Amino acid sequence: MKALVAQGGGPTAVINQSLAGVVLEARRFSNIESVYGACHGVAGISLENIVDLGQETTQQIELVAAMPGSALGSTRDKPDTRYCQEILRVLQAHGIGYFFYIGGNDTADTLRIVSEEARKASYPLRCIHVPKTVDNDLMCNDHTPGFPSAARFVTQAFAGTNLDNAALPGVYLAVVMGRHAGFLTAASALARKYPDDGPHLIYLPERVFVLEKFLADVKAAHERFGRCMIAVSEGIHDASGTPIVSQLGKNIERDEHHNVQLSGTGALADLLCEEIKSKLKIKRVRGDTLGYLQRSFLGCVSDVDQREAREVGKKAVQYAMRDAPDGSVTIHRTGSYAAGYKLTALTEVTGKTRTMPGAFISANGTDVTDEFRLYLRPLLGSGMPEAHRLRSNPVQKILNV
Amino acid sequence: MKALVAQGGGPTAVINQSLAGVVLEARRFSNIESVYGACHGVAGISLENIVDLGQETTQQIELVAAMPGSALGSTRDKPDTRYCQEILRVLQAHGIGYFFYIGGNDTADTLRIVSEEARKASYPLRCIHVPKTVDNDLMCNDHTPGFPSAARFVTQAFAGTNLDNAALPGVYLAVVMGRHAGFLTAASALARKYPDDGPHLIYLPERVFVLEKFLADVKAAHERFGRCMIAVSEGIHDASGTPIVSQLGKNIERDEHHNVQLSGTGALADLLCEEIKSKLKIKRVRGDTLGYLQRSFLGCVSDVDQREAREVGKKAVQYAMRDAPDGSVTIHRTGSYAAGYKLTALTEVTGKTRTMPGAFISANGTDVTDEFRLYLRPLLGSGMPEAHRLRSNPVQKILNV
Repeated sequence: MKALVAQGGGPTAVINQSLAGVVLEARRFSNIESVYGACHGVAGISLENIVDLGQETTQQIELVAAMPGSALGSTRDKPDTRYCQEILRVLQAHGIGYFFYIGGNDTADTLRIVSEEARKASYPLRCIHVPKTVDNDLMCNDHTPGFPSAARFVTQAFAGTNLDNAALPGVYLAVVMGRHAGFLTAASALARKYPDDGPHLIYLPERVFVLEKFLADVKAAHERFGRCMIAVSEGIHDASGTPIVSQLGKNIERDEHHNVQLSGTGALADLLCEEIKSKLKIKRVRGDTLGYLQRSFLGCVSDVDQREAREVGKKAVQYAMRDAPDGSVTIHRTGSYAAGYKLTALTEVTGKTRTMPGAFISANGTDVTDEFRLYLRPLLGSGMPEAHRLRSNPVQKILNV
Repeated sequence: MKALVAQGGGPTAVINQSLAGVVLEARRFSNIESVYGACHGVAGISLENIVDLGQETTQQIELVAAMPGSALGSTRDKPDTRYCQEILRVLQAHGIGYFFYIGGNDTADTLRIVSEEARKASYPLRCIHVPKTVDNDLMCNDHTPGFPSAARFVTQAFAGTNLDNAALPGVYLAVVMGRHAGFLTAASALARKYPDDGPHLIYLPERVFVLEKFLADVKAAHERFGRCMIAVSEGIHDASGTPIVSQLGKNIERDEHHNVQLSGTGALADLLCEEIKSKLKIKRVRGDTLGYLQRSFLGCVSDVDQREAREVGKKAVQYAMRDAPDGSVTIHRTGSYAAGYKLTALTEVTGKTRTMPGAFISANGTDVTDEFRLYLRPLLGSGMPEAHRLRSNPVQKILNV
């Protein structure tokens, strides 16, 4: 039988490590005749846009493994039963016995349906889900490949802009990815080293956002530090769950699943900056949206993330070789810090979204706890750049004007 | 006599290398009694907010040298004659005989006035300007410290988002810093490796921006590549010089010098994306604004830039020790590639802005030439990450639906 590997959902900095893990591990097993890759996930399978990865050199696969983006191409398709039957028909026609799909929640759900349809059709197909998501919102996982590298980007971004903001003080606000889960926004807290370092305020989608409270927080922090650094999750919402961006702004785009478009626009940062300028009369207010660089910047990656992303790909193949049920490779933490892997039922991973546990969020709701810092630090990997300052040795004033 | 060093204007990734260059070189000369640093540039001098850098260890100065941001703090003040007389009064009171000011155009102009006032007052003061700017718009320089590292960030950002955009095709537009000079936006071209890599279109402030032409360009590129990556300078303007952001948008902020605020807002990207969506009916259109990360991301720097920024600081001290006129340290290119330094009269550096020479811009106005690529490549430094793709080995279709 042949193996087929595909990539779904938003790319990450390490999703190609998982691809390499699947391909290189599959080469070790003689009962896998060849390894195919589907172009643009399930969309490519239904069109038979498939490549033979067996013709690719190990050298090239290693080079591609280090790249952000999904090397096979990705898709946002969320197939229904009929679509999955179509996929199954193609898999059968090409003699695919092993289907590895690298992605998040929706990807796991696609595999769940394909797995069921294969069983109904009595077709011998092993379906293994390989986890990835920058949002870190997959159930049953301590964390998800892709998140640590994106978190590292966010940390390095805030560590740098904090030095910039200290040099030219004012309010600096940056919007971070994460529709329902605040892990990535919370990562900004690890940029702090000195006691007055930013971000001074962190707004997560796990807490209700109240504009008046936000403005009062910014005012207080600005008065205390003479400047204010703010990290805001793109997914912040009011008590009814309505995204703040669609409350403050007009003409906000919605996708085919009726979700408000949060990424690829600077609207939320601009709207919040406008509120700060007009209500607090602070002069220098700057807003950035970290955008697609968070998941794709070429040259910012966690080596721990790379290693684990590679391993979940390899483990997927190993689980497929055993006579085990279909499932998702999940990551579990042991000690401080090592990673272990399990095969978890697909139904346990799909349908739900993991968010920040309460123990990771400070009581005032605008900071993280030490527990979160201890959780995240080992994931960021080695060689994290550290901020340094000049020490203050003031010269005595002479003129005293 | 004592030496005083200060930093002005927008911080860069290497402005602290120049600071370290001044401080460490000054320690070699016995006729420099001590090295002071002014907090927040000229603003700190007038308030006598001065620190004694002689009490700082070489170890700490080396650590700080590698940091983005201006370690002494910066200022946007553009002093007039009266302000400069005030500065001179403080310099005299503290026995400062050497004044090193690291910054761009405005910084050089401040030094020019202070230098003139010192001569009028017959006060023996050596004023040396140390260049920096991410925009690369200083006259008389082959390039300016700070630009190469920012260019490297832009290149790595586009190399990564190009892979992301190839995985999930659509239109991706990113706005890059640079009010009058397009060097930084043009750096995006060095992200390309494969023939269909983005950015497919580059819009520079050196060319008049015509919305209809832009939309036609995007349509053509999108049809040709099945996706479209666009690099846009924040400073694009119409034939009358009016910034496009203030044409398309309302409520655009202006600073005290009546300049439209271009950085710290996602407005231009959002407005252009809106035009593409509404006029071209393309579904997936995403806009990022690279923002302050371009000049401050902790962990993206050109080693060539670091070395040269250090050297212009050291050369400034060496020139000050000689019986030469006041001036600006300028960088000159020899061969392919080495850097040389000169001391250039302040009046030659101030008042004007350097922009991209015509030979760097392609005939169609939306790309760069090989001459620009050869100009920029050595500045980006060593260890530039390179993009890699899987080669295409298509599997023969069986179902052919």
